[in-house]
Amino acid sequence: MTERLQVRNPRTGQIDYDCAVTAPDLLARMAAEARKAQPAWAALEPAKRAEHLRELAAAMREERDAFVQALFEDTGRTVESRLEFDAALATIERWADEAPALLAEPEPRAANIPFIESRQFATPYPLVGVISPWNFPLLLALIDAIPALLAGSAVLVKPSEVTPRFIDVAERVLARLPGLAGVLRWCVGAGEIGAALIEQVDLVCFTGSVGTGRKVGAAAAARFIPAFLELGGKDAALVLEDADVDRAARALAWGSMVNAGQSCMSIERVYAVDAVHDRLVDALAREIGRLKINVDDPEAGQIGPVISAAQVGILQTHLEDALARGARALTGGRLVSHGGTWCLPTLLVDVTDQMRVMREETFGPVLPVMRVADEAEAIERANASIYGLSAAVFSADGARAERVARRLEAGAISINDAALTSLVHSGEKQSFKQSGLGGSRMGPSSIRRFLRQQCLLVNPGLDDPWWFGPDDPAPTRDSTEAT
Amino acid sequence: MTERLQVRNPRTGQIDYDCAVTAPDLLARMAAEARKAQPAWAALEPAKRAEHLRELAAAMREERDAFVQALFEDTGRTVESRLEFDAALATIERWADEAPALLAEPEPRAANIPFIESRQFATPYPLVGVISPWNFPLLLALIDAIPALLAGSAVLVKPSEVTPRFIDVAERVLARLPGLAGVLRWCVGAGEIGAALIEQVDLVCFTGSVGTGRKVGAAAAARFIPAFLELGGKDAALVLEDADVDRAARALAWGSMVNAGQSCMSIERVYAVDAVHDRLVDALAREIGRLKINVDDPEAGQIGPVISAAQVGILQTHLEDALARGARALTGGRLVSHGGTWCLPTLLVDVTDQMRVMREETFGPVLPVMRVADEAEAIERANASIYGLSAAVFSADGARAERVARRLEAGAISINDAALTSLVHSGEKQSFKQSGLGGSRMGPSSIRRFLRQQCLLVNPGLDDPWWFGPDDPAPTRDSTEAT
Repeated sequence: MTERLQVRNPRTGQIDYDCAVTAPDLLARMAAEARKAQPAWAALEPAKRAEHLRELAAAMREERDAFVQALFEDTGRTVESRLEFDAALATIERWADEAPALLAEPEPRAANIPFIESRQFATPYPLVGVISPWNFPLLLALIDAIPALLAGSAVLVKPSEVTPRFIDVAERVLARLPGLAGVLRWCVGAGEIGAALIEQVDLVCFTGSVGTGRKVGAAAAARFIPAFLELGGKDAALVLEDADVDRAARALAWGSMVNAGQSCMSIERVYAVDAVHDRLVDALAREIGRLKINVDDPEAGQIGPVISAAQVGILQTHLEDALARGARALTGGRLVSHGGTWCLPTLLVDVTDQMRVMREETFGPVLPVMRVADEAEAIERANASIYGLSAAVFSADGARAERVARRLEAGAISINDAALTSLVHSGEKQSFKQSGLGGSRMGPSSIRRFLRQQCLLVNPGLDDPWWFGPDDPAPTRDSTEAT
Repeated sequence: MTERLQVRNPRTGQIDYDCAVTAPDLLARMAAEARKAQPAWAALEPAKRAEHLRELAAAMREERDAFVQALFEDTGRTVESRLEFDAALATIERWADEAPALLAEPEPRAANIPFIESRQFATPYPLVGVISPWNFPLLLALIDAIPALLAGSAVLVKPSEVTPRFIDVAERVLARLPGLAGVLRWCVGAGEIGAALIEQVDLVCFTGSVGTGRKVGAAAAARFIPAFLELGGKDAALVLEDADVDRAARALAWGSMVNAGQSCMSIERVYAVDAVHDRLVDALAREIGRLKINVDDPEAGQIGPVISAAQVGILQTHLEDALARGARALTGGRLVSHGGTWCLPTLLVDVTDQMRVMREETFGPVLPVMRVADEAEAIERANASIYGLSAAVFSADGARAERVARRLEAGAISINDAALTSLVHSGEKQSFKQSGLGGSRMGPSSIRRFLRQQCLLVNPGLDDPWWFGPDDPAPTRDSTEAT
């Protein structure tokens, strides 16, 4: 009997959807089929693969309402679901435009031995696995899958078991695209399906928590396959004494509360130097105080429900721990239940380093602000974290802001704004510390993560000077460069 | 009391050297000191770092005799020790020449949002760990350390406990180079020191066996640090019916016997199509039959002793297993002991897939040749391996050889020659399957493995359109590109 996945609606708290879990033998068959289809896909010109991807975008656009509805039911949000769908299409179209040039073979480099001809080929990893999270179910399922497909790989995607409703729509779309259907396959299930997927693929991309990322990294290392991990963050914002405080407050309110804080590049800690701390807190209280949870009408109010039931407990713990240890909530400070659970938009002050809300990823609409003496203390505290995803610096002095930013242990740093990596995808950035592993997911080099370099070294026979002859005391080839 | 490492001489089989094992607290202190010295090193211009590396090469050259003597005592070979030393110097000088251009920042790319300024910085991983093997003790200790230093990292190297004698000489050289001594540190010890080193560094490069590589990969994954693994091989050579048989035999004798087979890019399997099999075997028997072990005079004879005592048992097992299962040794076929142990240069025929000598890395002067029906069978058998390091193809038809080569699952493929990656370091190649993990160690991109991309996204304040306003039903920033 096929196991069914039971799916909860975050607005009602009720299970109102189910779908078949991909059985292990089916997963293995899908992987085998994808491997079989991949060589023909890889043999296409990149421009032809780009054309197939544009057809995918066009076919998805016709199903926009169905995708947005599925995302709405799984995440409880409307505006963001429309934005997410549109961003996913933009991602496909952007990659389709850029990939052919990015995949062009670089000029061959002469071998360092003149009579040897060196030829270089970049070949795609045949089968790429993608394991994606629930906070942007569609977009993050595609963010690595699209460049992998364009590079010539086949892709097996396992979206989060929390938000699988869009998969049905995606399958329907793919059924109309025979050129692509063989090389883009979807699996359904939780962790054990993810683990089974890793056993089938040649490279894995994972977006999610540090804890699961650690398991993915270990499973990939055991098989000697590359793992590209995009994990959690505890992004710090540093507000220096010369910052435009109102501007910082607006950016930080957006950067911490958008998507109800359910983005890994959310601002989760603010270090404000003493001279501006109180003014910043006032401005933040004003900005955050305006925000409303959208219980009755999903279109009214900026703060949606907590998507994942498991996350409710984490938010509850972080808030209780902070308040018990002496933090004050100037706005919000608690969760409310109306079937689903909403976290009130929360501004915390009087926080300490010991509080979980300052140390662990909260992933909710909660912004703690700490007073610091000066820039140096702000940098030190920002870096005193196991995370290193992104950060933000506010200062009227551009050179100073850049100097401070470059001292932060994080891959992407917004200056006089927050969470700009959600908007700018042209830059290359790598996660620091436990926030991830592997090359940049963004920017031109990211598509080359899916290519493996092969080098052909040809002796055209003009020369044949090296061999063991009876008069040679020992091998006379002049090198031992490699093992 | 300091623990001492007992070191065996492979020519005599006697322990005749010992040195202090790096204690865990010393290792931690060395790592802390290297981290402290690294920012000033990274702040130098690349050309200035290159100058320091050229000074290292010059200072090493003055100690050539001492290095070569240490390598001779640890490996039992003279010619190869001189070649190894010279190749190590050439590696330093080549990288010093090439690094400044390779490290130049690429042209900044415009952000996809016009009013955001995007700036890109590549910063070195602060502390790189290198764990290197015994087959080329000096060269493989430096092969990753040199580009890492030029990229601006500090480097902690742990050479193999089997061949540590050169470390003393290296320490003496570094003592004269205060600019470099702080950022290039040597540790002494076996596996537990390697494990302790991984706990201290931000990136690890390992060259060695698949088994240890698996442990290194797991330890690195647990810490979310990149691991670049260069592991074993079972390199196959395919000899097609139109090959120049004499030429193939000479290349294969060299490619399998050089350094007594103790190179990971050694040819360890030959698949010869039926039409040329017998002629090839005759020619190989002639070529390999000429080679002598160098028991009495290290300068007389091409085949040196087995360096690692542990390897003796592996060779013994592979030969016994093959002969017991019906293989015939046309030359050699056994080990001889004269204090140290030598493996006679061995050509095996009538081999089968079941024999360990066809499946597992032998790492000795042993060449098994299998008869195959045709090109297709040769390709299939070559790919039926857990390894994918390098390979070779012999055919008079260049286009055919290239077509066959591109179907082989290996990173570097020599055509009409063998083991050319020992000579050509300009090409980029990645290990397939269990032969390794991570970007190419060779070629121009390899130095960039030691850099981490940081992206600064600046809102210069010309625009401030996105924030939560009282009239906004929900966040209006138009994207959710990243998590």
